[in-house]
Amino acid sequence: MPVNLTPPVAAQLLPVAGVSLGIAEANIKRENRKDLLVMQLSEGARVAGVFTKNRFCAAPVIVAREHLAQAAVIGASGIRALVVNTGNANAGTGEQGMNDARTTCAALAGLLGCKPNQILPFSTGVIMEPLPVTKIAAGLPGAVTNMRADNWFDAAQAIMTTDIVAKAISKQVTIDGKTITITGIAKGSGMIHPNMATMLGYIATDAAIAQPLLQAMVSEAANRSFNCITVDGDTSTNDALMLIATGKSSLSEVKAADSKSAKALQAAISEVAIYLAQAIVRDGEGATKFITVQIESGKSEAECKQIGYAIAHSPLVKTAFFASDPNLGRILAAIGYAGVDDLDVAALKLYLDDVLVAENGGRAASYREEDGRRVMKQSDITIRVVLNRGAAKATLWTCDFSYDYVKINASYRS
Amino acid sequence: MPVNLTPPVAAQLLPVAGVSLGIAEANIKRENRKDLLVMQLSEGARVAGVFTKNRFCAAPVIVAREHLAQAAVIGASGIRALVVNTGNANAGTGEQGMNDARTTCAALAGLLGCKPNQILPFSTGVIMEPLPVTKIAAGLPGAVTNMRADNWFDAAQAIMTTDIVAKAISKQVTIDGKTITITGIAKGSGMIHPNMATMLGYIATDAAIAQPLLQAMVSEAANRSFNCITVDGDTSTNDALMLIATGKSSLSEVKAADSKSAKALQAAISEVAIYLAQAIVRDGEGATKFITVQIESGKSEAECKQIGYAIAHSPLVKTAFFASDPNLGRILAAIGYAGVDDLDVAALKLYLDDVLVAENGGRAASYREEDGRRVMKQSDITIRVVLNRGAAKATLWTCDFSYDYVKINASYRS
Repeated sequence: MPVNLTPPVAAQLLPVAGVSLGIAEANIKRENRKDLLVMQLSEGARVAGVFTKNRFCAAPVIVAREHLAQAAVIGASGIRALVVNTGNANAGTGEQGMNDARTTCAALAGLLGCKPNQILPFSTGVIMEPLPVTKIAAGLPGAVTNMRADNWFDAAQAIMTTDIVAKAISKQVTIDGKTITITGIAKGSGMIHPNMATMLGYIATDAAIAQPLLQAMVSEAANRSFNCITVDGDTSTNDALMLIATGKSSLSEVKAADSKSAKALQAAISEVAIYLAQAIVRDGEGATKFITVQIESGKSEAECKQIGYAIAHSPLVKTAFFASDPNLGRILAAIGYAGVDDLDVAALKLYLDDVLVAENGGRAASYREEDGRRVMKQSDITIRVVLNRGAAKATLWTCDFSYDYVKINASYRS
Repeated sequence: MPVNLTPPVAAQLLPVAGVSLGIAEANIKRENRKDLLVMQLSEGARVAGVFTKNRFCAAPVIVAREHLAQAAVIGASGIRALVVNTGNANAGTGEQGMNDARTTCAALAGLLGCKPNQILPFSTGVIMEPLPVTKIAAGLPGAVTNMRADNWFDAAQAIMTTDIVAKAISKQVTIDGKTITITGIAKGSGMIHPNMATMLGYIATDAAIAQPLLQAMVSEAANRSFNCITVDGDTSTNDALMLIATGKSSLSEVKAADSKSAKALQAAISEVAIYLAQAIVRDGEGATKFITVQIESGKSEAECKQIGYAIAHSPLVKTAFFASDPNLGRILAAIGYAGVDDLDVAALKLYLDDVLVAENGGRAASYREEDGRRVMKQSDITIRVVLNRGAAKATLWTCDFSYDYVKINASYRS
């Protein structure tokens, strides 16, 4: 079961003016399962996004990037809909995969009366199997005739794969006396790593945001959220975080990154992204513990992240947390092999929550095994490393490594 | 059970003139278990080694490095014994750990009538717990009174931790009509990664080898063997590979790296090292499959290793192999996120043994799932990636990722 993650309540998810959501069961991998989502956008809505850096990026990622680039030229009349299927990633599928992604866009464009390049396609699921594009085309009309603005809960469910809990949240902020709504959904629980994992996230707001600022905002939000989580260190072929600004609120267009409005919006959008990213870790495959890895007083953010990921990726650290065994020397070993060559291990301090575990190159004199055991029993734990060599810091989120991770991934296709 | 790894036969392990081995049960972590090994060397024996690059390197590693550096000055009358304990790594133990390693050396030096800096100490086991140095001191006399030249099998057993099978091999080569013997032992099965993991290896030969050449030979052997394996990507605090040349054979001293004798010796020593390194992977914690990852026609050996390790470390790839599920898109994903930024994924070919799996950026037209299934059922499998962009290559060895890995590491200290 997910770690301290309450499923969203449908009634608490707020519609975003200018966004309608249609869901279908297209039988892509299994029957009787919502596996197709269409998000239709009002004219003038702007979209920006960040995508996986995997060299084997999926066909829909290539097509979505292409269409976004063309939309920037078309301008405000750009993207009119996003289409997401689960059950098949359409990745590692060569030329056929590209054709299939384009066919999906064309089919939806025909139904919505727009051009194929006004559609952004997304897929998630098994890699290197042909996309069942006829099933998707057959499912689209049902999704389109079913469009509703208050459908965010079903939308969050429709993009789930190995997720146990749907991930969605709404937030409102008041800027210049106007109420701005932000609603976001995400999926993902394995193959989760920085630079976007098997992770899809969609955040929509009714604010009007200039295109360059929108791109900057989605990058910033991703860097503070989805790029700070890891479940297993695997980066997928399909990940994307999209930020939609419909401009349907009465707040005037936000353009300058240093304006008060932009800062308030960025804070709220990042908060939504962080909630969704943490929800993905809490629902990590087989997770029984949510672990915050906090690296402080480093020389640079890069070295803090480097050490943080060495800890967060270590199967030995993760299995010790699964067992609630304070075998904390494994954390020291991970710090030591993180690759920070001039690191003075005698200068750093290691804490588990409030318990000082190690200092002066070894176990702290004050450390008692029973204190370690107490913290390890919790389901939310913070590993804190104070490097004492600078002013930089980084925070990452990860989960433990259990039998169930192996089970889920050994039987993924069955 | 280990993958296709037969335990060594005691009678087939050949003594190396100039090396005597004594074993004791010192009750370091558990009772009734060989956990202490003394290797006594004849006067004039030379020793060279490579050690972990972990910044949190263990106290015995620091002391062994120190004593080796001093021995290079002392010259031929340098190192007289190595002492290895299991059950406790004496790592992350600060100043006390340094004292404990020195105390161990002093105790053995007293028994052997040499100086403490003529002893090299090694420890393996739990990190960040104080070394039970009184138990070790109490166990040493038993090991010393028990010295035998034909004790390699017991020595291999005495250094085991989570290993299921002892790892040892002997090899003889004839150089200039003289028979040279090489015998090696190693331990390790988790926390296994390049740059030496929780891995200890000792290879001894009766050849006489000049000190600088000996160092070059042990580095070369490590690079072709222990630095090409990974079980879980964790690098430990204690690893060491030591090469001992006693000079007791009648072959004259080997000095020049490009001599025929040096090449023949290097080949035989590397072969012993590769056998031991592969044995560690075959006995990898929870391993059910032995996987050779072969990357060919890359631009550089570095990028071949980078891609090889991305595959070999991927928990998703490793769990798919555990399940014998040809979910081979996961291999493409790992190649894609390996970090080779200009990689053309459409140019590469992926093979599973002799089966062409992917080409032209996706699944090969000739690939049939039943062929993938057939190969995945084997216990020895080769993943071969032909990059088609250069002449460099690299071969790594790893194992799959099973329930038992989690079990072993979740219960390591209990």
